[in-house]
Amino acid sequence: MKLITRKNQLKEEIKIWEKEALSIALVPTMGYLHTGHESLIKKAKEENEKVVVSIFVNPMQFNSKEDLENYPTNLENDMKILEKLGVDILFAPSKEEIYPQENKVFIELKDLDKELCGATRPGHFQGVCTIIVKLFNLIKPTRAYFGKKDFQQLAIIKKMVEDLDFSVEIIPCDTVRTNKGLALSSRNSRLNSNELEDALILYKILEKVEEEFKKGEKNTERLIEIGKSIIGQVESAKIDYISIVDAETLEKIEKIKSDSLIALGVFIGNVRLIDNRELFI
Amino acid sequence: MKLITRKNQLKEEIKIWEKEALSIALVPTMGYLHTGHESLIKKAKEENEKVVVSIFVNPMQFNSKEDLENYPTNLENDMKILEKLGVDILFAPSKEEIYPQENKVFIELKDLDKELCGATRPGHFQGVCTIIVKLFNLIKPTRAYFGKKDFQQLAIIKKMVEDLDFSVEIIPCDTVRTNKGLALSSRNSRLNSNELEDALILYKILEKVEEEFKKGEKNTERLIEIGKSIIGQVESAKIDYISIVDAETLEKIEKIKSDSLIALGVFIGNVRLIDNRELFI
Repeated sequence: MKLITRKNQLKEEIKIWEKEALSIALVPTMGYLHTGHESLIKKAKEENEKVVVSIFVNPMQFNSKEDLENYPTNLENDMKILEKLGVDILFAPSKEEIYPQENKVFIELKDLDKELCGATRPGHFQGVCTIIVKLFNLIKPTRAYFGKKDFQQLAIIKKMVEDLDFSVEIIPCDTVRTNKGLALSSRNSRLNSNELEDALILYKILEKVEEEFKKGEKNTERLIEIGKSIIGQVESAKIDYISIVDAETLEKIEKIKSDSLIALGVFIGNVRLIDNRELFI
Repeated sequence: MKLITRKNQLKEEIKIWEKEALSIALVPTMGYLHTGHESLIKKAKEENEKVVVSIFVNPMQFNSKEDLENYPTNLENDMKILEKLGVDILFAPSKEEIYPQENKVFIELKDLDKELCGATRPGHFQGVCTIIVKLFNLIKPTRAYFGKKDFQQLAIIKKMVEDLDFSVEIIPCDTVRTNKGLALSSRNSRLNSNELEDALILYKILEKVEEEFKKGEKNTERLIEIGKSIIGQVESAKIDYISIVDAETLEKIEKIKSDSLIALGVFIGNVRLIDNRELFI
């Protein structure tokens, strides 16, 4: 595996692959890799001739300085994992390399970032889209892999690819969970053992809401109430948001009539976790 | 020359060129081609193995419905010109082909569109950048050609390419003028013979301001006053804006200390014309 930190070097490598018309996968990450990332990379490896993983904790997508400063990193361990998985290039640039001068051109979203994480993290998805466009332009991937845990991110990037005519195929990947149901996240590393137990409340809420939905409840306000009612079981938990939206437009709905999504953000102590489940009609 | 109206067909053609590693030029236009466009295309032809010209009157960049409806078109004549110049592909899609569904992802600009045309045409440059990104993604040009008459557009696109890491080289091309100095523009076709004479006022203002600048006047407010003072010579002329900005950041300046730009928009009757001149320190 080649570790590349400079854009120009990356472009040179990509040019060589392009000349040979090789298929290229991109798996964009913020590092501190876990089994969830590994499942994306394995899929990428199966479906493409070359795999690039990027590790970049993108300041532009953090709206909380504390969250950015506390975001866990462990490049040495990440490199071992990537080496073992047979990744071809790890692109791990510095902030200065990615943003050599003040960015004045951004990706802007209409409607798509008004609900869910977009509502409580203003500017977050503009930051995500801007770095993803940069990575698309540098790496020119045939396919790019995104986890469904960040469902809104996935939906926004799919729409961005359509609206801006990028020629990359977006591959959604299922959320990987612990045996007990906790969605894997780099942020889980910031939880102590009690909090790790508490964090199961996200999964329990999704289970409960889906159960009621399957029993026939289609009114989203009542479903959300049911979800909210069980959060009291866990003292350390505080709801950031809990919403049911159309799975495609991500707009809030009153009644579930088409494939939908229940998504939630919950603080466990100081750590904000997210999870979601698709509600298929 | 191939006339292509569908994105998928265009992508197929580009793939063939990519496999042969040919250099590709893009000259984006809104049609109704004149000698100014021709000079861009000739340059593109000299510097690249393949040349794509696009003709698309992009509704997203028009903030006035009247201006959009009155924008001149003449595809038949344009095709003759392009054929003669040895263009390889004319890409002339419909609105529906470019925007098959509502666009929800745009290019957003910070600061760069606050002055000059950006100030009097809100949303214009977002529209320009969005279509240009789409064309870059569809055509993957090695080089793209833009006229200096739209100086702000050129500066914004250069910054966009840097900020979003597009791998295209932006080639600025000098403004082409009539013998008397009028900058060529498709909109000139909407002027009658008196108005064509009146339109020379833009050139006269630029000449006068540059003359005073060369004599030593560096105060932009005074230079603008000098420019404004001669507009009264022409009854049909009404100033939309006249500004002096830093040639790189496009921010308004009080004193000329580095390479700058005087730019102006002037209505001649109902037709809005623009022109500019660089003031080199």
